[in-house]
Amino acid sequence: MESPYNNKPRAALDGVEALFFDVFGTVADLRGGVVRQLEEVASKYSIQSVDWNEFADAWRIQYGKITKRISVSADGPTNLDELLRQILDSLIDTRGSTWERIGPLWNDEERWNVTRFWHNISGWPDSVRGLSELKNRVMIAALSNGSVRLLVDMAKYAGFPWDMVFSTELFETYKPNPIVYDSAAKLLNLPPHKCAMVAAHISDLEAAKGQGYRTIYVRRPNEDFAVQNRDATTVKSKSEAGGYQHIDIVVNSLIELADVLKDMP
Amino acid sequence: MESPYNNKPRAALDGVEALFFDVFGTVADLRGGVVRQLEEVASKYSIQSVDWNEFADAWRIQYGKITKRISVSADGPTNLDELLRQILDSLIDTRGSTWERIGPLWNDEERWNVTRFWHNISGWPDSVRGLSELKNRVMIAALSNGSVRLLVDMAKYAGFPWDMVFSTELFETYKPNPIVYDSAAKLLNLPPHKCAMVAAHISDLEAAKGQGYRTIYVRRPNEDFAVQNRDATTVKSKSEAGGYQHIDIVVNSLIELADVLKDMP
Repeated sequence: MESPYNNKPRAALDGVEALFFDVFGTVADLRGGVVRQLEEVASKYSIQSVDWNEFADAWRIQYGKITKRISVSADGPTNLDELLRQILDSLIDTRGSTWERIGPLWNDEERWNVTRFWHNISGWPDSVRGLSELKNRVMIAALSNGSVRLLVDMAKYAGFPWDMVFSTELFETYKPNPIVYDSAAKLLNLPPHKCAMVAAHISDLEAAKGQGYRTIYVRRPNEDFAVQNRDATTVKSKSEAGGYQHIDIVVNSLIELADVLKDMP
Repeated sequence: MESPYNNKPRAALDGVEALFFDVFGTVADLRGGVVRQLEEVASKYSIQSVDWNEFADAWRIQYGKITKRISVSADGPTNLDELLRQILDSLIDTRGSTWERIGPLWNDEERWNVTRFWHNISGWPDSVRGLSELKNRVMIAALSNGSVRLLVDMAKYAGFPWDMVFSTELFETYKPNPIVYDSAAKLLNLPPHKCAMVAAHISDLEAAKGQGYRTIYVRRPNEDFAVQNRDATTVKSKSEAGGYQHIDIVVNSLIELADVLKDMP
C-alpha cells in the first residue's frame, strides 16, 4: 500500500536515534494555556476589557527577544522563571503601557503566581499520544528554554512522557545558542546526524540544522511568528518547491510524525 | 487502624516535595543485572570457572573508589561510561590479575559492549510500582553517578518513570560532592529541607544530610559495602536505638515508602 507520507522521504530520518522537542507552542499550547489562566485571575481582580491574547503575545514576544539576546552573550537570568517575572513586571508597571492599571493590583506573590502560569499548560490534542508512540521507537527529550522546574511541572501537569528533560538552564544560556544543541547531543552520546529537532518555529530548526541535526517542522495554528501571517500551512520542507532548505520534513501533528517513524526499517 | 509505619514518623518527611534516588543498587539490581550479562558473554567466549559476582564486585568497588576521589578534585573522566571502561581495562589487562586471561579475548568493540552492560539493568521487584505510586505524590528524580545516556537507557529498559534525570555528569563531578545535592535542589527550585535523598548506601545519605536534605534508607540485599557484612537489616534510623543520626527513616522497599507518603496529610 502506498504510504500517505510520500512527501516525507523516510531517508530524511534514517538512522535518527533521538528526537529533541521544542516545548512552548510545539508540544504545549502555550498561548491557550496562559490565556485561560490569565482570564481566571483577571476575573478574581475584576479586571475587564483586557485582550489577554494580546497580553500573552506581548509577554511571549519579549521573552523571544530577550532570550535571543542572552543566547548571544547579553547579560540576564538564564532561569526562565526569573526572566518571565522581569518581563511581566515591565508589562504591568511601565507608564503608558496598555496594562499599567494591572500593576497596582498584583503584589509580589500574585506576580509569581501568574509567572507560574507557564508551568501548567496542556499539550496540543495529539501531543501525549504522539510522544508515547515515538518513545517506543527512539529517545524523546525536551529541549527547551523553560527552566528545569518549569519543564518538570509541565510534564506532570500535561502527561508528557519524556525520557530526558534538557532545559537550556543546564547550559546557562538559551536557544538558539549552538552550545545547546551540541551539549544535548553529546550528553546522549550521539553524533548530531543521529539527532532530530522537532519544532513549530523555523528559527529553532535553522539553529539545529546549523549544528548538524535533522529537522522536523510541526505546523501549529498561529504559532510561528517568523512566517507570514503566522500561517504555518505555508511552510514546506526542502524536498518541496519553495521549501526551506533547513527543514527536512514537515508534519501536521506528533501522531503523523510517529506514523512516519513507524514506516522506518 | 494503626499504621504499620509507626517507627517511621511521618513528620520526618512532612513538606517534602521531591525525592532524589540513587539508582545503582537502590532502584536497580546492579549486581544481578551485570552478572547475568557477563555470564552470557563469557559463554560466547567459552570463558569458564570465573566467579562473575566477584568480578562485578571488583568493578563496582573500583568505581566507588575512583568516583569518590574525582568528587574531591582528582583528575579523571566525569562521564561514567569512560570511567567504567578504564576500570574494565585495568581488571582484564593487568598482569597477575585474576582476570588477565580475559584481556586478549575482548577487543575494543566487545569491551564497549561489556561496559554498556551497566545500561541494561532491571529494577528490584518493587521499584517500578513504587516509583509510579510515588510519582503521583511528589516529584521523583534520579540523582546518580551514571552518565545521562546510561540513566536514559536504563529508564527505558527497566521502565523507571522519572520526572527528571539528574546525572552528576551535568555537574561535572560525582557524588558525594556537595555541589551535586545543592545543584539538583536548586534546579527544582526547592530549599534542601523539601528534598529527600533515597539510597541503599549510608554514605550517600550522609552527604545528602550534610547539605540539608531529609534522608531515606532502603534496605537492599548485599548492597551496602559500608555496613558490617553488607547486612542492611542492621541499619536503623535516628529514631531507633543505635540508629544512624543522619538517616531519617528506613524502609524495605519503594512500595513501603509510597505507603509512608500515602499517610501524609
